[in-house]
Amino acid sequence: NKQPQDQFSNRGMTLEKDIDETNRYYLNRGRCVVHKKPTPVQIVKVDYPKRSAAVIKEAYFKQASTTDYNGLYKGKYLDFEAKETRNKGSFPLSNFHAHQIEHMEHVVKHEGICFVIIRFQAYNESYMFPAVKLFPYWHRQFKDGRKSIPYDVIKSEGAIIPSGYPALVDYLSVIDQLFF
Amino acid sequence: NKQPQDQFSNRGMTLEKDIDETNRYYLNRGRCVVHKKPTPVQIVKVDYPKRSAAVIKEAYFKQASTTDYNGLYKGKYLDFEAKETRNKGSFPLSNFHAHQIEHMEHVVKHEGICFVIIRFQAYNESYMFPAVKLFPYWHRQFKDGRKSIPYDVIKSEGAIIPSGYPALVDYLSVIDQLFF
Ligand SMILES: [Mg+2]
Ligand SMILES: [Mg+2]
Repeated sequence: NKQPQDQFSNRGMTLEKDIDETNRYYLNRGRCVVHKKPTPVQIVKVDYPKRSAAVIKEAYFKQASTTDYNGLYKGKYLDFEAKETRNKGSFPLSNFHAHQIEHMEHVVKHEGICFVIIRFQAYNESYMFPAVKLFPYWHRQFKDGRKSIPYDVIKSEGAIIPSGYPALVDYLSVIDQLFF
Repeated sequence: NKQPQDQFSNRGMTLEKDIDETNRYYLNRGRCVVHKKPTPVQIVKVDYPKRSAAVIKEAYFKQASTTDYNGLYKGKYLDFEAKETRNKGSFPLSNFHAHQIEHMEHVVKHEGICFVIIRFQAYNESYMFPAVKLFPYWHRQFKDGRKSIPYDVIKSEGAIIPSGYPALVDYLSVIDQLFF
């Protein structure tokens, strides 16, 4: 019975799909240029059949060394990761890889706009949580700190992202308030 | 006899490898944060063997809708495409897809720093050619214009990129002159 896992993976894609649709809308309206990065894949074997497209016959998923999304808004560099959780009380830091955090630290250092979009599925709420507020939680976990960020902290130190149509995850409206 | 084609594909990768190495060096030195985007792949079939990593069994190359590289330099958004040619007198516009040009137009409109790195293999020279100078050539080709950019134009309106070690394609030095 694979139902629960399938449900989970579908849910796991919902936020990204909503953001992708939002980004298409933003692009068409000339608001920003933000794209999802392709899934990194290590290609091992490719067939070249006559008169048809090359077929990848063996490949493996590679761990992403950066974040899901980046792009350009009002001349500024934007960079963010999208994550959702079924948890109700907190967001588990195990959702991040060390490489992603390192990348976000580089972005902040070079004055990019960097954040995480965290969706709590239980409440159907998405928050913009600035990367600079994530870093202390990330590093503290290795010295006896807790392994998650409390929901209340995300609610109070992040900003709830309005959801509309077609801007399903209207993150630019929040960026305007916090970064410009 | 596949020699010439193999040679060509190896050569075709050289510039990207040189840029990747340059970007690693830049990142380590804290100069900028620029990464190559993964090759976009349409995944059709994945096997999940017990106790080992998921294997992609069927996938296809998708046309990239953006450029090869983007990132962040001094708070600014950087976006560029890398292309090399064996031609000696000009750079063929057929090296670009309409989608890439469209993407570069968006980037310029939103005030990103956008350019092409063009390598002439015959001279072992790499040029930074600003996207704004590429656009007129691109659009002119559809109204009886020529289908390539003359080498002399790239030489005079672009900027030659110094090659050192470990910055094999030291494009930042040229960006500093032209965009800051
Ligand atoms: Mg994600
Ligand atoms: Mg290229």
